[in-house]
Amino acid sequence: MWDRLFTNVTLASMAGPQAYGLVEEAAVAVQDGLIAYAGPMAGLPGGAARETTDAKGALMTPGLIDCHTHLVYAGNRAGEFEARLLGKSYEEIAKAGGGILSTVKATRDASEDALVEASLPRLDAMIGEGLTTVEIKSGYGLTLEDELKMLRAARRLGTERPVHVKTTLLAAHALPPEFKDRSDDYIAHVCDAIMPAAKEEGLADAVDGFCEGVGFSPAQIDRVFEKAGELGLPVKLHAEQLSDLGGAVLAARRGAHSADHLEYLKPEDAGKLAEAGTVAVLLPGAFYFLRETKLPPVAALRQAGAPIALATDCNPGTSPMTSLLLAMNMGCTFFRLTPEEALAGVTCNAAKALGLDDAGVIETGKRADLSLWRARRPAELAYGIGVNPLIERIFAS
Amino acid sequence: MWDRLFTNVTLASMAGPQAYGLVEEAAVAVQDGLIAYAGPMAGLPGGAARETTDAKGALMTPGLIDCHTHLVYAGNRAGEFEARLLGKSYEEIAKAGGGILSTVKATRDASEDALVEASLPRLDAMIGEGLTTVEIKSGYGLTLEDELKMLRAARRLGTERPVHVKTTLLAAHALPPEFKDRSDDYIAHVCDAIMPAAKEEGLADAVDGFCEGVGFSPAQIDRVFEKAGELGLPVKLHAEQLSDLGGAVLAARRGAHSADHLEYLKPEDAGKLAEAGTVAVLLPGAFYFLRETKLPPVAALRQAGAPIALATDCNPGTSPMTSLLLAMNMGCTFFRLTPEEALAGVTCNAAKALGLDDAGVIETGKRADLSLWRARRPAELAYGIGVNPLIERIFAS
Ligand SMILES: [Zn+2]
Ligand SMILES: [Zn+2]
Repeated sequence: MWDRLFTNVTLASMAGPQAYGLVEEAAVAVQDGLIAYAGPMAGLPGGAARETTDAKGALMTPGLIDCHTHLVYAGNRAGEFEARLLGKSYEEIAKAGGGILSTVKATRDASEDALVEASLPRLDAMIGEGLTTVEIKSGYGLTLEDELKMLRAARRLGTERPVHVKTTLLAAHALPPEFKDRSDDYIAHVCDAIMPAAKEEGLADAVDGFCEGVGFSPAQIDRVFEKAGELGLPVKLHAEQLSDLGGAVLAARRGAHSADHLEYLKPEDAGKLAEAGTVAVLLPGAFYFLRETKLPPVAALRQAGAPIALATDCNPGTSPMTSLLLAMNMGCTFFRLTPEEALAGVTCNAAKALGLDDAGVIETGKRADLSLWRARRPAELAYGIGVNPLIERIFAS
Repeated sequence: MWDRLFTNVTLASMAGPQAYGLVEEAAVAVQDGLIAYAGPMAGLPGGAARETTDAKGALMTPGLIDCHTHLVYAGNRAGEFEARLLGKSYEEIAKAGGGILSTVKATRDASEDALVEASLPRLDAMIGEGLTTVEIKSGYGLTLEDELKMLRAARRLGTERPVHVKTTLLAAHALPPEFKDRSDDYIAHVCDAIMPAAKEEGLADAVDGFCEGVGFSPAQIDRVFEKAGELGLPVKLHAEQLSDLGGAVLAARRGAHSADHLEYLKPEDAGKLAEAGTVAVLLPGAFYFLRETKLPPVAALRQAGAPIALATDCNPGTSPMTSLLLAMNMGCTFFRLTPEEALAGVTCNAAKALGLDDAGVIETGKRADLSLWRARRPAELAYGIGVNPLIERIFAS
């Protein structure tokens, strides 16, 4: 007796040899939170289900996975957004207390409860679009206590709502004001104090950094990665967003799960990501919001066989975006991904970017995280702009 | 006894001398579908209400108005979107039956009921973001019967859902295949048969055309406008989207409610729109989807004092978008509108573009179409990307 059976499904399993792993007239059976059958109706083994849904041809995909977010923060930067459009310069805005440090201040001032409350509407918006797994980074605390508070809030979100949360410690996000002109000291503090504490409390599923002129140098990031290796934590990196410092290559050398942004990645370095199995996570929301014109080397990544993922980068400063479907559309429109690459980018390849092997595809034995859409063909998901055709989200508890 | 009273509102009335017509600690009272009071709590005349809502500081704006949509159509063009991203040329796609004529075929093949059913999810998405008035164009029928069918479907939508629908006859949208190489004959048919029939059935609140090399010439559009004048129907125009044919100036000369798109409008012509009171309707969704790089002359429009509106242009070929909030964000991000201009563009100026004088602002005596938002300052509405902070939509029945 299955828990749930879906019949007459247009199945985009994202596994198998067909584009999208497409199976027309498919059935999907769920048992104990796992997929018990996914394939042609004709091949469905005899068996009853407690609940049967006739999908009437509707499209089913894996539940969506947002593999790069800064979902937990306090405040917002709408005032700064408006000031910039009214002609204020970055300097004037920074002087008036704007920029990332305004989010750091608001996040430090917020309690864990307040962070959870501020983040829930963003998470609910994502869940309302068929999301079943979300990665959430710290990085606006920048003290031991505040980074752990952010990660605890992130973990709490996964108990407040039916969603899988993967946490990432991003203490190496920005230099806190207390360490002005002492970035090496801050990195030492991250390695010696923050990372071990996060590990000990089981709060971090991975470690991330921001490798950039306005962030940290490759040498500093490598110290963080070295420490992560000692602690047995996987790594990922914000790399090549504004310039090419070689961060993605460094990440690949360290076997990172992902290298993220990549607008300034040299095409000839794409192969290094592919060889390492490091997922190229593209973030079109930030590309759009910052009015970037340099495109990530998609053709080179494609040719090298590097897995490509797409994420919202949900954050108050450079991508105040909660729609993964819109990230798919922007990935196609700006970066010329195909709709199939876009869907892979928020399912199977997003799972890879999080080191998950039980999600992101619809196959027997995988987690029964599924989304059912008011659509007939998978390309419709990437085609709509700000359209949400979700019928039902199925979450493996 | 008021029907409804809102207290502790952050009121963006879009009327009055302050930016956004902002009133902090405001109250709004509703009586018989009209605004009975809108102003400081302190000035609230004594009076009870059947229902009182403490907004706790939440932002209230006029209900949103989408003043340019092609919401009614059958089918979608996701296959064409995918084919283009897989490298197919426009010619190949056209040969395979793609392009606008594929939507014309699907719309002609659909019954009025089927059109209503296909359009409701799009309308519901808009209503879910605080929309209270929507303009809907015909233009995929291109026969007398099918154009009227589209307009009837549009009118029906306004009875199926609590929303005001303004219909626009856009028979001069594209040349139907039956009139190949005989565009003057088609325009004569539009003027002699379709327009009078739409007028007689009371199906058209305005008349529109597509003035473009791939559409109709200014001379042909002027014949349509001439006829509209005879029938007493206001006009508007798709103008200067892909090239400058002088359509916007023609529209202004005819006293059009709006000229729409305008990427190729000469800055020196902005003043003509301002003098005529013709609203410049900008459509960033189409700009984005077509990867246009030519920007509409926003600075010139602003300086000339032309009212600027923003709309989704919801249509299957060039803007498959249902989010007016996203149009606001794109208007700021691409066109550098301020958040206040963006909000005016979907409220007071959108009302002007539809010839409405009872909507788009929150003032005593106007229609009580209101939206209450999980936001503290009006700039937050334009700041989010794919974020929907609607708490409640109030609709004047
Ligand atoms: Zn990020
Ligand atoms: Zn249009």
